[in-house]
Amino acid sequence: MPQDDDQTGSAFDVATAVRRGPDGGFVTDLDPGWDVGGGVLNGGYLLAVAARAAVADSPHAHPVALSAGYLRAPAAGPATLSVVPGPAGRTLAHSLVTLSDDGGPALTVQATTATLTDAAPERQLPMPDAAPVEECVSLAGTAHLAPPGLSVPGLVHRVDTRLDPATAGWAVGAPSGKPLLRAWVRFADDREPDPLALVTFADVLPPTSFAAGRFGWSPTVQLQVLVRAVPAPGWCLVEARGGTLAGGWHDEDYTIWDSIGRLVAQSRQLARAPR
Amino acid sequence: MPQDDDQTGSAFDVATAVRRGPDGGFVTDLDPGWDVGGGVLNGGYLLAVAARAAVADSPHAHPVALSAGYLRAPAAGPATLSVVPGPAGRTLAHSLVTLSDDGGPALTVQATTATLTDAAPERQLPMPDAAPVEECVSLAGTAHLAPPGLSVPGLVHRVDTRLDPATAGWAVGAPSGKPLLRAWVRFADDREPDPLALVTFADVLPPTSFAAGRFGWSPTVQLQVLVRAVPAPGWCLVEARGGTLAGGWHDEDYTIWDSIGRLVAQSRQLARAPR
Repeated sequence: MPQDDDQTGSAFDVATAVRRGPDGGFVTDLDPGWDVGGGVLNGGYLLAVAARAAVADSPHAHPVALSAGYLRAPAAGPATLSVVPGPAGRTLAHSLVTLSDDGGPALTVQATTATLTDAAPERQLPMPDAAPVEECVSLAGTAHLAPPGLSVPGLVHRVDTRLDPATAGWAVGAPSGKPLLRAWVRFADDREPDPLALVTFADVLPPTSFAAGRFGWSPTVQLQVLVRAVPAPGWCLVEARGGTLAGGWHDEDYTIWDSIGRLVAQSRQLARAPR
Repeated sequence: MPQDDDQTGSAFDVATAVRRGPDGGFVTDLDPGWDVGGGVLNGGYLLAVAARAAVADSPHAHPVALSAGYLRAPAAGPATLSVVPGPAGRTLAHSLVTLSDDGGPALTVQATTATLTDAAPERQLPMPDAAPVEECVSLAGTAHLAPPGLSVPGLVHRVDTRLDPATAGWAVGAPSGKPLLRAWVRFADDREPDPLALVTFADVLPPTSFAAGRFGWSPTVQLQVLVRAVPAPGWCLVEARGGTLAGGWHDEDYTIWDSIGRLVAQSRQLARAPR
């Protein structure tokens, strides 16, 4: 269906744009500016590209559930997306999206699309207390304080990320020891959030293991994102919480509230634990 | 690889058995005894069948992450499973499993397999307090007290489910109003738990909306199961918690601990909310 964002030319809309390819699928140009260091593209960014393809081929306007397998890290540059449609009805539609680059499939996504509203939830987890945006710590502004050996990822220049000081100790050499991060986020060019943006925000923070004092590489293996409502304009509050760490694996849960306190998205990922 | 359970002839092993089909995939017989009422097969049971196919085609022994899209409810009886392999390495392997019956694809599963251990986790959510098994309420024993119009599902005769009295009020006409269920579970024929069993246990309880006093139908749309360790023998404690209810959708989180208190599995599902 026609996409309900207006392709304003924002960095996010340009970087996630998909267009029909010659064989019925879609083509895209993966933007090297959305990396998390070392040229590796952010998993939430890649998932938003796949979600855009799913929505473009759906009778419904929004991604509501996306389950992604991260097979390998795709290179920036040209990529293709195939969309295999599943059952579709008045309430929801299923599809399977595969994003591939020259090296083969990189990301497979089970996508459920539907049409979300901005109605108030009947029940939700309340928004936690967080310092006001103006008292928070800009992740871009403290990047030069990052632990030695960590490059400054492009992502922090695309998404304005303001860490709650209560969870920002690790950025100034004083990790709390608790795998918890909380931040206000919005796009750096002020593009307002929408369901596609929430897909990216659902994997936008540094690994929660950073807050626990472990700064190693933590590749995502599977990520499930649920989008629950159309967010209000303004800053979103993102909370990421590390769960169980066992046998070289750890899980992370994200919860996202919009500027008026509605729970608008959730994610859970299984990742390899940093050494 | 060879499966590491011993195919003891337990009801679970028989009901989830897969064998090579003529075209390189697998065939199975979906057992009508694992229903949740109205002839609809339990989602965790179906996912365990798919996981068995994924493991059978993997160099690794266990399912560690499964993300399933429930496209439509398959009929009991013969079904096929196709397994499309993805990248595989020393640590993990990816595949995509599709379970189909005569009506077409019913379940698609992104499967990550690996080899789990029973090592103690470095960090986990502690096991919550729950009444001892002998003080709990047998779900099978109270089925005749179920709200009018609810049939007794076969599942409660396959999986011995003992509800913590603190979350069992709904079964005797006094819903707590809170979408929280906690129960000790094990197979009724005493087959010990293993990673495949945990896949079924991750969707084994009645909808948490029952505890909140809503007894309508709540079909799962997507379900992600993470298996974190090989469980110890004995009862597992399963906690299911309803999250956000908004716009006709709700989510449920399961956390499962084994008999020695290790967190061994987690799941999250998005479902349509009961009316």
